[in-house]
Amino acid sequence: MSAVENGAGAGIRPGETAVALPERFDAGLYFIGRIETPWQTRRDCPRRGDLVEGPLCTLHIDPRWAEALTGLDGLAHVQVLYWMDEARRDLVLQIPRGGAPAGTFALRSPVRPNPIASSVAALVAVEGTRVTVRGLDCRNGTPLVDLKPVRTAAEGAPGA
Amino acid sequence: MSAVENGAGAGIRPGETAVALPERFDAGLYFIGRIETPWQTRRDCPRRGDLVEGPLCTLHIDPRWAEALTGLDGLAHVQVLYWMDEARRDLVLQIPRGGAPAGTFALRSPVRPNPIASSVAALVAVEGTRVTVRGLDCRNGTPLVDLKPVRTAAEGAPGA
Repeated sequence: MSAVENGAGAGIRPGETAVALPERFDAGLYFIGRIETPWQTRRDCPRRGDLVEGPLCTLHIDPRWAEALTGLDGLAHVQVLYWMDEARRDLVLQIPRGGAPAGTFALRSPVRPNPIASSVAALVAVEGTRVTVRGLDCRNGTPLVDLKPVRTAAEGAPGA
Repeated sequence: MSAVENGAGAGIRPGETAVALPERFDAGLYFIGRIETPWQTRRDCPRRGDLVEGPLCTLHIDPRWAEALTGLDGLAHVQVLYWMDEARRDLVLQIPRGGAPAGTFALRSPVRPNPIASSVAALVAVEGTRVTVRGLDCRNGTPLVDLKPVRTAAEGAPGA
């Protein structure tokens, strides 16, 4: 993985702090599919997904994992973990737009050592390896990392 | 990473289905610290963490990321992502104890292509690079992957 793929080429604002990244990774991820959304660039993405009014998005699951979707149909909500592949990973102190400086772990910014996003989405349909949901806010083509059922308030079910 | 580190050595039950894993990883993770808990093996861990009655657990953050904790203090809840490093990664259909067969993405089992757990925990204290929380249920020494603030119901705040 090159420095650019690693996000190190993205911007840093005055007052933000970067650290040296570790020399090697400790574990590896498999992308299990891609997320199809209406937003072609990060700039187009809404600030927050809308579980009710948001547009339909499709999780395209790699056929290798097709059987892992067994029993997902019928759930109201799923937790979606995805990889924010355009984010730099070395900032510890960030200045959010219009905000005060804050530590990376006190922010839900894409910029973080491991740029994994976690969103709860409304499950609309499961057809083969296509999972349709509502409530995401990521760029078209975003790599998918995991999909978990959400059944209880403790798991993140809205209004449960 | 060897097959054993990758969890392929762990058990499979009759009726469960494994697939061949992809030949290479698509992205790399940095462990940002370790989680200290009272449970020394997976067998000792409770089935579910308790945000109120559960024992204190400590997130030991690698000093490299110390400044990333700025502003975390004062929050009531944090989302903790951690790496379930003992789980095999190749099962698509699983038979939970006492349950019917279900697809991996319809379960919150540690066994999944990317064994990342997501838990909301009650934040008790931040002292230097030690973050004390309540509500986790993982093994002592579990690698930590991310820490995010939880402020709203949409982010997983209990009772919000």
